[in-house]
Amino acid sequence: MLLYAIFLVAIVAEAMTGAMAAGRRDMDLFGVCFVACVTALGGGSVRDVLLGHYPLSWVGHPEYIWFTAGAALAAALLAGVLRYLRVVFLLIDALGLVAFTLIGCNVALEAGHAATVVIISGLITGCFGGIMRDLFCGDVPLVFRHEMYASISLLVGLAYVVLRHFAVPEGAAVVGCLIGGFCLRALAIRYDWHIPKFVYRDKP
Amino acid sequence: MLLYAIFLVAIVAEAMTGAMAAGRRDMDLFGVCFVACVTALGGGSVRDVLLGHYPLSWVGHPEYIWFTAGAALAAALLAGVLRYLRVVFLLIDALGLVAFTLIGCNVALEAGHAATVVIISGLITGCFGGIMRDLFCGDVPLVFRHEMYASISLLVGLAYVVLRHFAVPEGAAVVGCLIGGFCLRALAIRYDWHIPKFVYRDKP
Amino acid sequence: MLLYAIFLVAIVAEAMTGAMAAGRRDMDLFGVCFVACVTALGGGSVRDVLLGHYPLSWVGHPEYIWFTAGAALAAALLAGVLRYLRVVFLLIDALGLVAFTLIGCNVALEAGHAATVVIISGLITGCFGGIMRDLFCGDVPLVFRHEMYASISLLVGLAYVVLRHFAVPEGAAVVGCLIGGFCLRALAIRYDWHIPKFVYRDKP
Repeated sequence: MLLYAIFLVAIVAEAMTGAMAAGRRDMDLFGVCFVACVTALGGGSVRDVLLGHYPLSWVGHPEYIWFTAGAALAAALLAGVLRYLRVVFLLIDALGLVAFTLIGCNVALEAGHAATVVIISGLITGCFGGIMRDLFCGDVPLVFRHEMYASISLLVGLAYVVLRHFAVPEGAAVVGCLIGGFCLRALAIRYDWHIPKFVYRDKP
Repeated sequence: MLLYAIFLVAIVAEAMTGAMAAGRRDMDLFGVCFVACVTALGGGSVRDVLLGHYPLSWVGHPEYIWFTAGAALAAALLAGVLRYLRVVFLLIDALGLVAFTLIGCNVALEAGHAATVVIISGLITGCFGGIMRDLFCGDVPLVFRHEMYASISLLVGLAYVVLRHFAVPEGAAVVGCLIGGFCLRALAIRYDWHIPKFVYRDKP
Repeated sequence: MLLYAIFLVAIVAEAMTGAMAAGRRDMDLFGVCFVACVTALGGGSVRDVLLGHYPLSWVGHPEYIWFTAGAALAAALLAGVLRYLRVVFLLIDALGLVAFTLIGCNVALEAGHAATVVIISGLITGCFGGIMRDLFCGDVPLVFRHEMYASISLLVGLAYVVLRHFAVPEGAAVVGCLIGGFCLRALAIRYDWHIPKFVYRDKP
């Protein structure tokens, strides 16, 4: 239930970040809604397609499309205001990243997949929306160059799998991972933590 | 039957527009065929994968691959002539957009999906080929910045769902939507109709 | 068995080429692992999703994820050394291209698909990893502009389908295609063979 409530808030926030990215590329309102839906629902869709988990979330719950498209149009209208809410967005996005990851882990756990696949499933759910947003906007995905983002999704997935493996009840594991992951992400943003880059040039 | 005939003409025309886009990027003949197939068949494939509707159209009808690859090679040979047929292409493309949309709606209707999903299914079938073409050619998708294109697919899907909901026979609904959508698209091109853009810059 | 051994060597080599491409774009170690996994396992995943062939190879064999992620990290550590192994990589990549293609053909053959679909399945398995690597790195796919690469996958698939159609035993067909395809690719690299390009400009 908690996870579901956070999920709804998070898809709205993700949709808004998608809409902003589309606005930076001067897309029309249709493009804005499309990029917003892909950002908010793309991670879960890719996960479901890769795991063969049908129907996809937005096919079973078409209202998610309305939420995200509505959030995108609201973002386009209120862009001047949202500018000043950057920190709020970063925090909701941090919570959303953890919530998406846990939802992705649960989908793979319920399908009985191996631990590696469970963690990957969480990672895809958490990060692929942002990757696809950047792809459709013609950028090299930010996820791969930013402060710790995908790595936090990975750590949260790992922690959740370990907790569930040692029979920690689902509720406790979810709350623990949410709090831990959120704090880690907030610290990563605050202190600008990065994981090392690999810089390679063909000419030595 | 009418829809099927238009579909065949439209995949050939879409394949040719894909081949042109690949030619603008100096791709080799293999890349030209690949981009042509993705442009013509990609929208339907994405739809089928998202809805879990197997087998995909070109898996069940491999001749579609031959039609599109053949059309791409023909386009590469006859590029000098096609240059002068731009208006013909725009008109076939308009017809194809509407036909693809209606086919996509029918696939989702037959699978018993909700109205929102039916409209999205039409939209994906109509527009995703062009989106993927631009993605593989390294461009921000045109669909999001052009005159009304995706929006016409959306309107056609909406009209079709409403007509079918009020028990209008399939044939009549298809013909009505084809004519209406084609005229709307032709008018949008002629008078350069756009839907509003959302332009957002980080610095105010 | 032979094919499987080559497959394992090839996913490691493909992962390393993916890691190099990510390093050229200054991605962090997470991005490096992601691009490596997509390069090595993306072709097979796209094939399985398009053909509805579940579970995907890395879902059933999560160890593939470990091999490719490990190879990516090794490549990032040993980049200075790998620089001098370029020819070795090109040869393993050539073997991998043929092995991936044959594995893709076998998957479609076993599912009873038509010859065209079998060849396309081999082509997707052989080439899509590289296409997705370039897409995530923000490049127009190299596959479409390089010396004969995709065309060799196509020829190998065609030869394999013909051999199997005339009841040549699987082992003999595989070995024949491996040797023939490898030699063809080596010759294409050595003598810089290209298939013709289609260069199209809107203004004549």
